[in-house]
Amino acid sequence: MSAVADPIRLGVLGLGRAFTLMLPTFLGDARVQLVAAFDPHAEARAAFERTFHGNAADNEEAVCADPNVEWVYIATPHQLHARHVQLAARYGKHVLVEKPLALSLADADAMVDACARAGTRLIVGHSHSFNAPVLQARELIASGRYGAVRMVHALQYTDFLYRPRRPEELDTRQGGGVVFSQAAHQVDTVRLLAGGLATSVRALMGRWDPDRPTEGAYSALLQFAGGALASLSYNGYGFYDSDRQMDGVGEMGTPKAPDAHQATRARLTAASSEAAEVALKAARNFGGSAFAMPTPSTPTAAQHFGPVIVSCDHADLRLTPTGVEITSQAGAEFVPVVLPHVPRAEVIDELWGVAREGNSPLHSGEWSRATLEVCLAMLQSEAAGTDIALERQVAAPA
Amino acid sequence: MSAVADPIRLGVLGLGRAFTLMLPTFLGDARVQLVAAFDPHAEARAAFERTFHGNAADNEEAVCADPNVEWVYIATPHQLHARHVQLAARYGKHVLVEKPLALSLADADAMVDACARAGTRLIVGHSHSFNAPVLQARELIASGRYGAVRMVHALQYTDFLYRPRRPEELDTRQGGGVVFSQAAHQVDTVRLLAGGLATSVRALMGRWDPDRPTEGAYSALLQFAGGALASLSYNGYGFYDSDRQMDGVGEMGTPKAPDAHQATRARLTAASSEAAEVALKAARNFGGSAFAMPTPSTPTAAQHFGPVIVSCDHADLRLTPTGVEITSQAGAEFVPVVLPHVPRAEVIDELWGVAREGNSPLHSGEWSRATLEVCLAMLQSEAAGTDIALERQVAAPA
Ligand SMILES: NC(=O)c1ccc[n+]([C@@H]2O[C@H](COP(=O)([O-])OP(=O)(O)OC[C@H]3O[C@@H](n4cnc5c(N)ncnc54)[C@H](O)[C@@H]3O)[C@@H](O)[C@H]2O)c1
Ligand SMILES: NC(=O)c1ccc[n+]([C@@H]2O[C@H](COP(=O)([O-])OP(=O)(O)OC[C@H]3O[C@@H](n4cnc5c(N)ncnc54)[C@H](O)[C@@H]3O)[C@@H](O)[C@H]2O)c1
Repeated sequence: MSAVADPIRLGVLGLGRAFTLMLPTFLGDARVQLVAAFDPHAEARAAFERTFHGNAADNEEAVCADPNVEWVYIATPHQLHARHVQLAARYGKHVLVEKPLALSLADADAMVDACARAGTRLIVGHSHSFNAPVLQARELIASGRYGAVRMVHALQYTDFLYRPRRPEELDTRQGGGVVFSQAAHQVDTVRLLAGGLATSVRALMGRWDPDRPTEGAYSALLQFAGGALASLSYNGYGFYDSDRQMDGVGEMGTPKAPDAHQATRARLTAASSEAAEVALKAARNFGGSAFAMPTPSTPTAAQHFGPVIVSCDHADLRLTPTGVEITSQAGAEFVPVVLPHVPRAEVIDELWGVAREGNSPLHSGEWSRATLEVCLAMLQSEAAGTDIALERQVAAPA
Repeated sequence: MSAVADPIRLGVLGLGRAFTLMLPTFLGDARVQLVAAFDPHAEARAAFERTFHGNAADNEEAVCADPNVEWVYIATPHQLHARHVQLAARYGKHVLVEKPLALSLADADAMVDACARAGTRLIVGHSHSFNAPVLQARELIASGRYGAVRMVHALQYTDFLYRPRRPEELDTRQGGGVVFSQAAHQVDTVRLLAGGLATSVRALMGRWDPDRPTEGAYSALLQFAGGALASLSYNGYGFYDSDRQMDGVGEMGTPKAPDAHQATRARLTAASSEAAEVALKAARNFGGSAFAMPTPSTPTAAQHFGPVIVSCDHADLRLTPTGVEITSQAGAEFVPVVLPHVPRAEVIDELWGVAREGNSPLHSGEWSRATLEVCLAMLQSEAAGTDIALERQVAAPA
C-alpha cells in the first residue's frame, strides 16, 4: 500500500502477544502510524522506539494524553481493558480494544458509556470475526439468495491451554480459560453469521487438566431470534488439530506444521515453574529474547478460527481460509475471497471506515458486549445446569 | 466365508429398505441362513423365494410360528417393532430388531419384558454403532492407555430428509424425522464411546422445510456420568456432505459421488405426489422395479456415521472408515481396523456370539432402550426448552 495522506495515529497500551500478532498489520498497512506506546516491559518499549520511532511513554496516561495520538489500541490483559478504555475516553481518544471487551457486563457498560459520554468511537478487535471469509459469508447471506440462516456449526481444536500463560490466564475468576479468550472469537463469528440476536445459551465445560485448572474446552448450543440454532465446540487440550479441516492453514493464515500442538506442549514442559512460563510467554513477544521481526509477506490465505458451516434454506456455506464454499442444489461452488493485502488488514479497513469515512463500527462496544454476554452466560449455564436467557443482544448492523 | 455347520436360521419381517441394506450381509455371510419371510409387498416375497429359496409366508405370525426359524429379523417400520418383537417372543423366537427399538419407553419395556419372560434373546440392530471402527475405538479406550473419555464430538450432514419416505416418516408423532431414525445411530455410537451412562441432554431441533414438516436437523449436548460431555449435530437437509471428511467414503462404506445429495433431491422432485414418493421408495427396495441385486464385493472401508472425535486425557481418537487415528503427545498414529469380510458382518458377529457362543449382546434391549430414552429426551428438551434428566441409562458392557 502506497503512502497515505492522513494515516490514523495510534497509541498502544500493551506490547505483548496480541500486539505481536498485529505487528505484520501495523508494519504493512500505511493507513495506520504508531506514534506512542506503553508497556511495563522495558525491552518492549525499546523495540517500539527502534521499530516505529514513536514515543515510548512512561505510563498509560502519557499515551492517552499524548496530543499526537488519535486512537488508542488497547492490548493489555483482559482485566485491564475496562480501566484502559475509560482512561483513553477521559482524554477524548477513540479506542480499538482487544477481545474480550471486558470480564463483566458492568465493566462493558461503563466502557461503552464512557466512550459515549466522551464522544469517542469504540471498536473491539482484532477478533477472528473480522476475517475476510466471515465478512464474505455475511454478505452472501445478506444477499438473500440462500434464504434464512437455520443452523450454524463451529468447531475449533487447538493447543490453547498449553501455550505459555500468565497465571491469571489459568484462573477463570480472573478471565482465564477458553471461554473469555476463545469463545470471544467463536461466538462473535457465529453471532455475525446468524444475525446477532442470540436468545439463549446452554453450555458444558471441559476442565480436565488439574495442573491448568480452568476451562480448556466447551460445547454450547445457541438459539437465535428467528429460530436459527448454533452448535459451538472448542477443545484447547492440544491433540487433534482442526486446522487440518482448513487445508492445513493455521489460525494466522499460514501453513501449519502437523506437529504444532506437540511442539507447544513440549515447549511448555520445558518451563519448570510459573515464573519460567511467564518468561517464556514474554520472550516470544515483541522485543523479547525469542522474538523475530516478521518478514513482510502477502497473505496466501485468510486467518480463520476453525471450520464453520452455515446452513441456510437453500444452501450450506462453508468458510475456508481462501473463500466460501457454497453447496446448493446446483452443486458446490467456491467463491474466492479477496485476501487482505497484509494479515488482518480487515481490522484497519473497519478502523479506517470509522475514523476517516464516518462509518459506524461493525464491532462496536454494544456488539461486543453482546458477545461477552454470551460468553458469561456460557459459564453461568455450566454452573447452573440450565439454559441462560440473553438480554443484551444487538442485531448485526446491515 | 466357507460353509458353516450350523448357520443361524432367520425369519424376516419386512423386506424393505433396511432389509435391502442388509442383503449384502445376508448373501455373503454363511453364518446366517434366511429361511422364511413376510412382507405385504408381493414382489418382495417373490424376490425372497427366488433369492433365498425360503418360505415366503402369508403373514407375520406364520414366520414367527415357523419351527424352522430360530431368530426373527424385524425390519418393519418403527411403529410395528413393538408388536412384532412381542409376537416373535410369544412364539419363543429370538429377535434381531432394527433401530430404533421402539417409539416409546413403555413399548421398549414391554418388548424387553416379553423377551425376558419368553427366555429369548434380543439384539437391536443394525445400527452404525456396530461398525468396526467404533468397536475398535471402544477397545482402545477400554485399554486405559489414553485415560478417561472427556469429550465426544459427532457430526453428520446428509440428504436424509429428501430420500423417498413413507408419510409417517415425515410425521414426528408417528416416529418420523431425524431423531428416531438418525439420532438412533449417532446417540448409540456416542454412548458406546463415552461409557453409556448419559445423565442429561439438551437439544435443539431444526424443522425448516414446511413441505416435510418433521425434524430434519438437530444439535444436542449430552452429559455423562464421570463428567464427559458430548456434542452431536445432524443436518439432513441435503447440501453439504460430511462424508467428505470421511475420505469421500459414504455411510455404506463405498465411495460416494460428490453430487449424491443433489441427485437425491432431484429424484424426489420427480415424485409428484405422496403416492409417487411411496412408490419410489418401494421401487428401490428388494424385488422392486428399480432394485438391482448387489454384486458381492469385499469391503475396502467400514460403514460409518460421520466424523466422530473422542477426546481422552492423553489422546484424541478420530474415527475414520478404515480405522482410528490417535493423536497424542507422540504425534498422530493410525490404527487400521480389520475390515468386515462382508458389509455389516459385525452384526452377524454379535448375533453369532449370542446365538452360538452364549455371549451377552452388546446391543441388548436394555442398551437400546437407553439410546431411545436419549432420543425421546432430545425431542422433549426441544419442546420444554430445558435439559432433560435421563433415568433409564445402562453402562456399556465391558
Ligand atoms: N485477537 C487476538 O488474536 C489476540 C491474541 C492474543 C491476545 N489477545 C488479547 O490481548 C490481550 C492481551 O493478551 P496477550 O496474550 O497479548 O497477553 P501478554 O501478556 O502477551 O501481553 C500483555 C501485555 O500488556 C502489558 N501490560 C501489562 N500491564 C500493562 C499496563 N498497565 N499498561 C500497558 N501495558 C501493560 C504486559 O507487559 C504485556 O506485554 C488479551 O485481552 C487477549 O485476549 C488477542
Ligand atoms: N440400520 C439401518 O441402516 C436402517 C436403514 C433403513 C431403515 N432402517 C430401519 O428399518 C425399519 C424399516 O424402515 P425402512 O426404511 O426399511 O422402511 P421400508 O418402508 O423401506 O421397509 C419396511 C418394509 O416393511 C414392510 N411391512 C409393512 N408392514 C409389515 C408387516 N406387518 N409385516 C411385515 N412387513 C411389513 C413394508 O412393506 C416394507 O417393505 C425402520 O425401523 C428403520 O429405522 C434401518
